[in-house]
Amino acid sequence: MSDQGSPIWSAAEESAMRRALELAASPGVPTGPNPRVGCVLLDDEGRTVAEGHHRGAGTAHAEADALALAGDRARGTTAVVTLEPCNHTGRTGPCAQALVAAGVRRVVHAQSDPNPVAAGGGDTLRAAGIEVVGGLLADDARELNRVWTFAVEKGRPFVTWKFAATLDGRSAAADGTSRWVSGTAARRDTHRLRALADTMLVGTRTVEVDDPRLTVRDAHDRPLPHQPLRAVMGLRDLAPDRRVLDDQAETVHLRTRDPREALQALRERDRQHVFLEGGPTLAAAFLREGLVDEVVAYVAPFLLGAGQQAVADLGITTIADAWRPRVVDLTVLEPVVDGEEPNIRLTLEPHREDH
Amino acid sequence: MSDQGSPIWSAAEESAMRRALELAASPGVPTGPNPRVGCVLLDDEGRTVAEGHHRGAGTAHAEADALALAGDRARGTTAVVTLEPCNHTGRTGPCAQALVAAGVRRVVHAQSDPNPVAAGGGDTLRAAGIEVVGGLLADDARELNRVWTFAVEKGRPFVTWKFAATLDGRSAAADGTSRWVSGTAARRDTHRLRALADTMLVGTRTVEVDDPRLTVRDAHDRPLPHQPLRAVMGLRDLAPDRRVLDDQAETVHLRTRDPREALQALRERDRQHVFLEGGPTLAAAFLREGLVDEVVAYVAPFLLGAGQQAVADLGITTIADAWRPRVVDLTVLEPVVDGEEPNIRLTLEPHREDH
Repeated sequence: MSDQGSPIWSAAEESAMRRALELAASPGVPTGPNPRVGCVLLDDEGRTVAEGHHRGAGTAHAEADALALAGDRARGTTAVVTLEPCNHTGRTGPCAQALVAAGVRRVVHAQSDPNPVAAGGGDTLRAAGIEVVGGLLADDARELNRVWTFAVEKGRPFVTWKFAATLDGRSAAADGTSRWVSGTAARRDTHRLRALADTMLVGTRTVEVDDPRLTVRDAHDRPLPHQPLRAVMGLRDLAPDRRVLDDQAETVHLRTRDPREALQALRERDRQHVFLEGGPTLAAAFLREGLVDEVVAYVAPFLLGAGQQAVADLGITTIADAWRPRVVDLTVLEPVVDGEEPNIRLTLEPHREDH
Repeated sequence: MSDQGSPIWSAAEESAMRRALELAASPGVPTGPNPRVGCVLLDDEGRTVAEGHHRGAGTAHAEADALALAGDRARGTTAVVTLEPCNHTGRTGPCAQALVAAGVRRVVHAQSDPNPVAAGGGDTLRAAGIEVVGGLLADDARELNRVWTFAVEKGRPFVTWKFAATLDGRSAAADGTSRWVSGTAARRDTHRLRALADTMLVGTRTVEVDDPRLTVRDAHDRPLPHQPLRAVMGLRDLAPDRRVLDDQAETVHLRTRDPREALQALRERDRQHVFLEGGPTLAAAFLREGLVDEVVAYVAPFLLGAGQQAVADLGITTIADAWRPRVVDLTVLEPVVDGEEPNIRLTLEPHREDH
């Protein structure tokens, strides 16, 4: 694609791509099945003609957003877009055709369409005589849509397993009491992370024993307007008085014990990011199958000496076989309430070969 | 002691006390039964006549050190000293009498003698007509000899319980393997802390099962010249081939299972700081008796899912009764070897009422 070593994109295009990434990451875009995308249209002189970004499922794609704003001025422009324009007719028309129709001269995109089966819009654009260049700031774009990219590439939702434990690895005391293992700061942080996922997943046993609400709530314990799907997996029926069946959020009962089947069913519902908060046995089942993509562990600096283990048997019998993930982040959560102690949040990722 | 609101010590004395604290903390003073003490002699104009500090058991006390240096010039000076001069004839003569004999006019000390039974040298000095003022930077002086102060006040050694665990609270895998739970940085840090104590304590079971060396070693696994006492407690005989019985350090077998009796026996040997590295059952016995004064916990960010618990049953059955210490320090130990992950060191202290 490059002419003998000359740069395949201009400084103006690189600068526009940074702006497009910023637009894509605009606050207020709700979590949904679509990737975050930004688009900037540049004229021949590298000046911005129009900017656009996607605002969530059912609204215009970033390219369409920018083209609508530009109107006739779109003709002859270069479209700088964070993701290879789509070729696919969903709730909105395919972007590749819209760019052709608008008379765009050149397209510079960051991330290529990660779909391993269907092709992206690059070929459609080229066939219409449009110059197409990809890969500019692709890593940044990929990181922006990390979970979406994962779900498209792997054909299943990304799974974040969250657990909270005492310093001696307990998630509840011997009598079953567990309020609270984590401090207030850690519990609020958990709600922040729940809100980033589109699905909360637990087992039927957790619903039976703990009767959790599984909603995302603010510091005053009020549910947020937008709630992830509540998914419960397992063969057992749910008692109708369980809180997970209230009207605070949508709930689905997946009648399987098989982690792969559960993720498949969630993928069919366009789910991309599962926040696994089930008990240790359910988590162990996912871990044994290599279906945990990220672990968020909260450690509270106190001791119980007995009670429920936060992590169940993983089939590991000797230290050489321990599950040793990569520490992606380690944050001390300072107490927000008098008399509490700092908690630790660890974010872990399996090494590639574990997948 | 004060004249109607006028300061009871001068700026020169305060400045001399800071210097005396510095001298007391001089590097190279070996761990031993004596407190670290510094002394500065000031003339009428607040100028330094001589400085001294204690260099370890069997050597001159700080006051004697400074007096020897000053010779006749000690007459009429003010002795600024970090600890109330002793009244006690040990391997060296009592400092209070030496100060009287040297003709010192005034004594300003920081910490008072913490011995709850025997009085310090203040009264002896006053009886000889010397002006005595105490309490200048007393907290700093107390902190300098934190462990010594504790041992004198409580009549038993200070106990630091060290343990290392995985993120799920395990100290060994199901087959007993535990090399290594902690990373290299954490293991080196443990040796650094061992060297600060004067006694290592384990149970006979640990000696039997793990056969530890219980020595302080450098990064090349070479024993340091000065080694803490190795103490093994329990009724069982030690097999003669156990490494704890080698000639690398002194070893004592305390034939008791009672934590209080063990600490009493160690106190009789002038021990002030016990580094408890026994198994979880021994640690639990100390914890249940309120005989743990500090916990150093190393957390390694990986999972075993089964195996030995790092912390044994503490008799806690419900979350409200959890052992919730104060977090004194939380440090991330970055890996010093490729391929390792950061470990976390937590330093915890029981709340006062737990004692």
